[in-house]
Amino acid sequence: MAFSSLDSALLGPLFATEPMRAVFADEARVAAMLRAEAALARAQGALGLVPAALPEALEALPPGTLDPAVLGQRTALSGVPVIPFVKAVQKALPPELEAAFHKGATTQDIADTGLVLQLREAFALVEAELPPIVAGLAALAARHRETPCVGRTYGQQAAPVSFGYKAAIWGLGIAEVAARAPQVRARMLTASLGGPVGTLAGLGAQAEAVAAGFADACGLGYDPVVWHTRRARVAETGAWLAQLMGSLAKFATDVVSLASTEVGEVAEPHVPGRGGSSAMPHKRNPVGATIILAAFTAAKGHAATLLDAMPAAHERPAGPWHAEWHALPQLFGLASGALREARTLAEGLGVDAARMRANLDITHGLLFADSCAARLSPRLGAATAHGLVEKAAGRMRDGGDSLRAVLEAMPETAGTDLASAFDLAPALAAAARVTDRALAEMGRLVPAAVPSPTSAAGYASPCP
Amino acid sequence: MAFSSLDSALLGPLFATEPMRAVFADEARVAAMLRAEAALARAQGALGLVPAALPEALEALPPGTLDPAVLGQRTALSGVPVIPFVKAVQKALPPELEAAFHKGATTQDIADTGLVLQLREAFALVEAELPPIVAGLAALAARHRETPCVGRTYGQQAAPVSFGYKAAIWGLGIAEVAARAPQVRARMLTASLGGPVGTLAGLGAQAEAVAAGFADACGLGYDPVVWHTRRARVAETGAWLAQLMGSLAKFATDVVSLASTEVGEVAEPHVPGRGGSSAMPHKRNPVGATIILAAFTAAKGHAATLLDAMPAAHERPAGPWHAEWHALPQLFGLASGALREARTLAEGLGVDAARMRANLDITHGLLFADSCAARLSPRLGAATAHGLVEKAAGRMRDGGDSLRAVLEAMPETAGTDLASAFDLAPALAAAARVTDRALAEMGRLVPAAVPSPTSAAGYASPCP
Amino acid sequence: MAFSSLDSALLGPLFATEPMRAVFADEARVAAMLRAEAALARAQGALGLVPAALPEALEALPPGTLDPAVLGQRTALSGVPVIPFVKAVQKALPPELEAAFHKGATTQDIADTGLVLQLREAFALVEAELPPIVAGLAALAARHRETPCVGRTYGQQAAPVSFGYKAAIWGLGIAEVAARAPQVRARMLTASLGGPVGTLAGLGAQAEAVAAGFADACGLGYDPVVWHTRRARVAETGAWLAQLMGSLAKFATDVVSLASTEVGEVAEPHVPGRGGSSAMPHKRNPVGATIILAAFTAAKGHAATLLDAMPAAHERPAGPWHAEWHALPQLFGLASGALREARTLAEGLGVDAARMRANLDITHGLLFADSCAARLSPRLGAATAHGLVEKAAGRMRDGGDSLRAVLEAMPETAGTDLASAFDLAPALAAAARVTDRALAEMGRLVPAAVPSPTSAAGYASPCP
Amino acid sequence: MAFSSLDSALLGPLFATEPMRAVFADEARVAAMLRAEAALARAQGALGLVPAALPEALEALPPGTLDPAVLGQRTALSGVPVIPFVKAVQKALPPELEAAFHKGATTQDIADTGLVLQLREAFALVEAELPPIVAGLAALAARHRETPCVGRTYGQQAAPVSFGYKAAIWGLGIAEVAARAPQVRARMLTASLGGPVGTLAGLGAQAEAVAAGFADACGLGYDPVVWHTRRARVAETGAWLAQLMGSLAKFATDVVSLASTEVGEVAEPHVPGRGGSSAMPHKRNPVGATIILAAFTAAKGHAATLLDAMPAAHERPAGPWHAEWHALPQLFGLASGALREARTLAEGLGVDAARMRANLDITHGLLFADSCAARLSPRLGAATAHGLVEKAAGRMRDGGDSLRAVLEAMPETAGTDLASAFDLAPALAAAARVTDRALAEMGRLVPAAVPSPTSAAGYASPCP
Repeated sequence: MAFSSLDSALLGPLFATEPMRAVFADEARVAAMLRAEAALARAQGALGLVPAALPEALEALPPGTLDPAVLGQRTALSGVPVIPFVKAVQKALPPELEAAFHKGATTQDIADTGLVLQLREAFALVEAELPPIVAGLAALAARHRETPCVGRTYGQQAAPVSFGYKAAIWGLGIAEVAARAPQVRARMLTASLGGPVGTLAGLGAQAEAVAAGFADACGLGYDPVVWHTRRARVAETGAWLAQLMGSLAKFATDVVSLASTEVGEVAEPHVPGRGGSSAMPHKRNPVGATIILAAFTAAKGHAATLLDAMPAAHERPAGPWHAEWHALPQLFGLASGALREARTLAEGLGVDAARMRANLDITHGLLFADSCAARLSPRLGAATAHGLVEKAAGRMRDGGDSLRAVLEAMPETAGTDLASAFDLAPALAAAARVTDRALAEMGRLVPAAVPSPTSAAGYASPCP
Repeated sequence: MAFSSLDSALLGPLFATEPMRAVFADEARVAAMLRAEAALARAQGALGLVPAALPEALEALPPGTLDPAVLGQRTALSGVPVIPFVKAVQKALPPELEAAFHKGATTQDIADTGLVLQLREAFALVEAELPPIVAGLAALAARHRETPCVGRTYGQQAAPVSFGYKAAIWGLGIAEVAARAPQVRARMLTASLGGPVGTLAGLGAQAEAVAAGFADACGLGYDPVVWHTRRARVAETGAWLAQLMGSLAKFATDVVSLASTEVGEVAEPHVPGRGGSSAMPHKRNPVGATIILAAFTAAKGHAATLLDAMPAAHERPAGPWHAEWHALPQLFGLASGALREARTLAEGLGVDAARMRANLDITHGLLFADSCAARLSPRLGAATAHGLVEKAAGRMRDGGDSLRAVLEAMPETAGTDLASAFDLAPALAAAARVTDRALAEMGRLVPAAVPSPTSAAGYASPCP
Repeated sequence: MAFSSLDSALLGPLFATEPMRAVFADEARVAAMLRAEAALARAQGALGLVPAALPEALEALPPGTLDPAVLGQRTALSGVPVIPFVKAVQKALPPELEAAFHKGATTQDIADTGLVLQLREAFALVEAELPPIVAGLAALAARHRETPCVGRTYGQQAAPVSFGYKAAIWGLGIAEVAARAPQVRARMLTASLGGPVGTLAGLGAQAEAVAAGFADACGLGYDPVVWHTRRARVAETGAWLAQLMGSLAKFATDVVSLASTEVGEVAEPHVPGRGGSSAMPHKRNPVGATIILAAFTAAKGHAATLLDAMPAAHERPAGPWHAEWHALPQLFGLASGALREARTLAEGLGVDAARMRANLDITHGLLFADSCAARLSPRLGAATAHGLVEKAAGRMRDGGDSLRAVLEAMPETAGTDLASAFDLAPALAAAARVTDRALAEMGRLVPAAVPSPTSAAGYASPCP
Repeated sequence: MAFSSLDSALLGPLFATEPMRAVFADEARVAAMLRAEAALARAQGALGLVPAALPEALEALPPGTLDPAVLGQRTALSGVPVIPFVKAVQKALPPELEAAFHKGATTQDIADTGLVLQLREAFALVEAELPPIVAGLAALAARHRETPCVGRTYGQQAAPVSFGYKAAIWGLGIAEVAARAPQVRARMLTASLGGPVGTLAGLGAQAEAVAAGFADACGLGYDPVVWHTRRARVAETGAWLAQLMGSLAKFATDVVSLASTEVGEVAEPHVPGRGGSSAMPHKRNPVGATIILAAFTAAKGHAATLLDAMPAAHERPAGPWHAEWHALPQLFGLASGALREARTLAEGLGVDAARMRANLDITHGLLFADSCAARLSPRLGAATAHGLVEKAAGRMRDGGDSLRAVLEAMPETAGTDLASAFDLAPALAAAARVTDRALAEMGRLVPAAVPSPTSAAGYASPCP
């Protein structure tokens, strides 16, 4: 079975992790629905609404009772899996308990709450990967806070930075999305209990007590109002996951480019057998970055689907709710693979500092154009200085010397000390300062990822 | 394994068909890659480039040789399934044939061509459903070409039409997308053979002959230029499938609305057990329409993913190609379920002509407002006539009588024969004429769906 | 000029508000860039880096100096508007100040910060509409907390609720997205100052002081690390706006359906001339809901574009940043129109309680099927009871009597008091209780929208 | 007015062309609606349904009569611009003609047909750019069919190709989308005339004749069935434009990468003042590619919006149709700018053949790894040969010599002539052959773009 590459035996291991796969296995889905029903029975039992034996009976149901494939055939008829599920459970229960089962609830309550129970585990898996990724990039940033490297804009070499600064931007970009996890999670991990039209009318005055007890028994948040058709939490979870993968994709985009043969400044960690080619024996393809980029591309589509499900008509809709099923688990599946790869990259990225240094020189000083203009500016005026350096750059393109030589040969520059403009140190110091601030921010946003300031002091040599 | 609801044992049967599931099964994927390799060997064998025994050996490989799950574990390392696949086949071949295997090809050639071989079957399954759906709606249109029914705009009753006209619009909306299938399919079903960087350099001057022979042996179209990074065909296939589901969603949207309790003009075909509710014994939910609408919602996301894969960098990209794997098979899976449901609806939709007739009367003549204005217009001028009828409608809303009574009580209408304005016949005749034209169009676009004009004459009673 | 309907003189007033239009006017954009430059000069002046006269000179620049149309012609050449803008300002400044202008900054700093200054006003306009919308729906909910109304699922009548409950769900759905505004806004409204490659190297050791002073002078948040390529805040703002419009679209979807001729339970507020038809004098189209739904549809596309801009390569990218310009202002424009219409609907929706009551009866008791099954369940078992009521419902569809009559004629129901199952009161009480909880939640989430509990007590008559 | 950057005086010239702006100007929109009304009057006049003076009167209406801004204020009330438009025209007509005006039509007929009249010009502008772009790339391909250049996969150097081959892939990728223009256009450019509910009932038995005459008078295709709610043509147009921009984005993606400082193989045509930086005097940013990539990103969002508009409820919907207005003109606006830039790039791309040649050498022979393995394969077996070359490549990475030296030092390679494996000629010949086939395909798909085979023979030197 493999419409989705995530579910394929052939492709799935490449794109998703086994623990996440287990969370969304069919058996887990059925078990989660059963756990929701047991929690409902427990809450109702505590209030004397159902026999005390019901929750125990539900929790004791042998797993084999509820074969997903058998239920699936009936789901194709009924339109929702909860209907055959309820019938199968009713059949398995002792007759005296059957009438008390699923009392007051509707299909969506059990399906949504069951899914939320799965999402709790899925969130935990996602969140477990975030500190190591941020920590890996923070360590890279600290280690290379003054390792000279080219800064590039529009794909062009622009001015010197440090490689640590680049790693810090990656890490902070991920950390700032990661830091929103608790809020997004808290809004999503709420139990759903509303009955047929959301009012839990079948439970009379005890509706609220049951709903609160149900959430409690599930270990989920309690939303005092049914969210059958308030789906912002689902859309928000999807948007957050897509943004998280977007922050990983920023990292991956740069890795693909920096690992390109011509730039050659980083390399994915070497794993024998990874990134080879069936045709080209020398290839080391950036497989990790490829997985991340593909995940982000697909994630955008799924996030759009979840947004699309918000205008859920009336008390429960025909279509939008089912559409969520097509998208939400896959978003977590894609995230699991993308995070795994991002962690591997963050923790093991190969850095070629010598190549970084060499790449700074290939434009013969053009990287210091901005800094030359700044030195010429006080005497010539900003516009003239900018224009002069532009002209010098043009001459170089036409086969000239170094920028310094060209500029110094221009009469207008006489009297300006240009030598200092070509000093790397100020650029590195500036990059190191931003890196330090970014590390502090990462620590604030994802405390588990970055050692406390005291211990961090170790790597932070004072800036000039 | 169920990140995707299409692949879930619990939900899959609801959303996708078994034949389409078989097309995209992992075993089918591996088999298709093997078929592609055998076709390559056959084409190369015919030119004397590889031993004649190679294609036979490949075709004779016992299926068990290539276990998707085993290959999948290695795919997670290599990044593409073709690499472990090639190694596994090499190992299974007699040593003297091994060197000739996969000659000149690259992973993407085999993966793309294998997928296209699967898509050929997938297209066939999709296209097989189109004529019956259009035929079902055409029959409905013909049968009800003069069955009175309300026309609605902005959700408001507007003017009378026939139910056949509505069915004809559904059918023609689907037919016009269906009619593009052959062009889309022809562009998609092409073999891919380019070697590492698309030039098939390894095959020297025989490259073109091999590529053409390869396409021929696959039974696929021959594209004389490699399409490793020309992915418009994939994006187009995705857009077409999404548009096809969009045309089904137009039908389904109307079914949900017309089947609503208050309108009650149509009902999904009655299937015992379908559309029930775990809480409400009386419910008959429009499950078929729900599946279609959910499929369309998810399809839009996947179509966006495929579009996103077009800017494939250089000779083969890192990310976009893999992203296609996440989306393309699912689009066919979603289509399979949506088409199955659309066919069931088209062939078995329950029509309540009496309720349609009754609904025409609930506004006490307002549906004929346009036709009243038209009759008043020659004497009063169009703007005044329109304003007068608007005023009459306003009075009715405030608790008045029928439109006719209100209008006739207005002095300005004296001398105008308003009775004829309330005659249904002209509206029905007009609707029937459009219906007939739509049937002719459906026949032109999907010839298999609509009987030839001669036999169609049976239903086409002459319009007044 | 009207590629976008928002900018069209013909269509713009329908889709966007004048105040929001003013925020994003070209003149406002140029003025915002100038304000950003002045703030930079002020921050640098305070540190003695530029002459104290510079900020004053910038603030005193006559508006005519910077004609958007003239700058626009040059932008088409340069690729970013900041370049001609900087040149035009340099020209307008006294020569002695020119060299100090734009010191250390890069185009993206000024463009991003200028845009953020506009967004501050745009957020204020959006947020100003949220309390009145929630308040309007809260008032509607309070007023109709026990007004009987049909609850519908899958477009089918399901069980009784109150209209207040429906309004409460709309209001709470909007309130829960609205409540996130402060967090989203705080993350978005930060100044951007990084210089060419984000390290502000040109400002040496005073970089951080300038950046903090700049943010302060702008009245914006200070992000200690440049966000040139950390665009989560932009994607998040877009996702939030789309979700906000999604919550409005839930409301609008229901309005279109409830305002349909056959349901007729609500009507858009009557405004002479609104919602008419050029052809049908009697029409009152739900124009407000139409605008909201169209805005949401377009918003989803723009939100996808902003997400797409996250993987911004290197220190500044070629493409993604420019793509944001295509989407972000339009999202605010769409929101302005959608919110205006939602407020009009929330404050003035026409409610036809009599029609709501009448609609409860059209299924002759089927709405109480769930409650009948609940009463039969203790004696018959849940599954049998559910099946029995299902059978009774089936008989009614075939032209029977009321559900009560059919059920009472069945021997299996002997001995069960069914009369009480048809009592509306429990359903209304249940709906009223959820309504009250929803009102409390709305008050918690959007305090400005809902009066304090004490004053709210007025409407909350005790539930039975 | 500038929610959309396309409509901004400051940004619009960068992103859209003036001719396309004129097509969608508000005045043009009003004029197109008037042209549609005049065509209707002409068709009806020919059948004696309206006075012969009506079409003349409409065509003679002074433009000032219909001020978009005045109509716009009323559109905000009515919900569609056609209503105030019709009233304004009625007022301007002689009283005796007024009653005959807009006869049988509804707002959507005039709005849709008016828009289609604008789209006819918009298609013409788009299609006019396609042959020059394809021609430019074809010329580049022909000129460089044997210019040695690196082929890259996953961002890594892979094997030699020619630069002409790369240009040919760009050109053919655009040509294959371009070739579908006539079909897409023919489906889109149809008149719409259906009256209030699509049946044109108000025109009785002459409805069809009027509709056909109307289409004819408009110079548009005649669709015998109303397409008020059959919107596939709109979604298809949007998908096609997005795919077209996707094919341009493939080209632009490669340009950004090839123009990067480290690769340096191409440069955007030099235009003084273009691609500069406010901070870095030496920068030459790839502005053209940036505009294309931003356009594609935004286009994907708009295409999704149009797809979303397909499920148009009943006879005319509340929301989806209006959503089209938000997206369709912007797609053409984005296309206009993207095509303008693509043409500039195609016609003037700077090619640095020396740099291309130099880049082939930076991996010291690794590009010939595939070809070495092929030579070793017959003796060692494919798998062993592949493994051996992989090992040699690994040794080189650890600081070794050239691939040839490393391989020749390995005992296993004794007896294999490896020298020929490092010959560029076969790779170039292979690339040239694909280039020639691609040129032929481009000529077949876009005949206007490529000279006929005879004249083309000039550049096609025979391959070895």
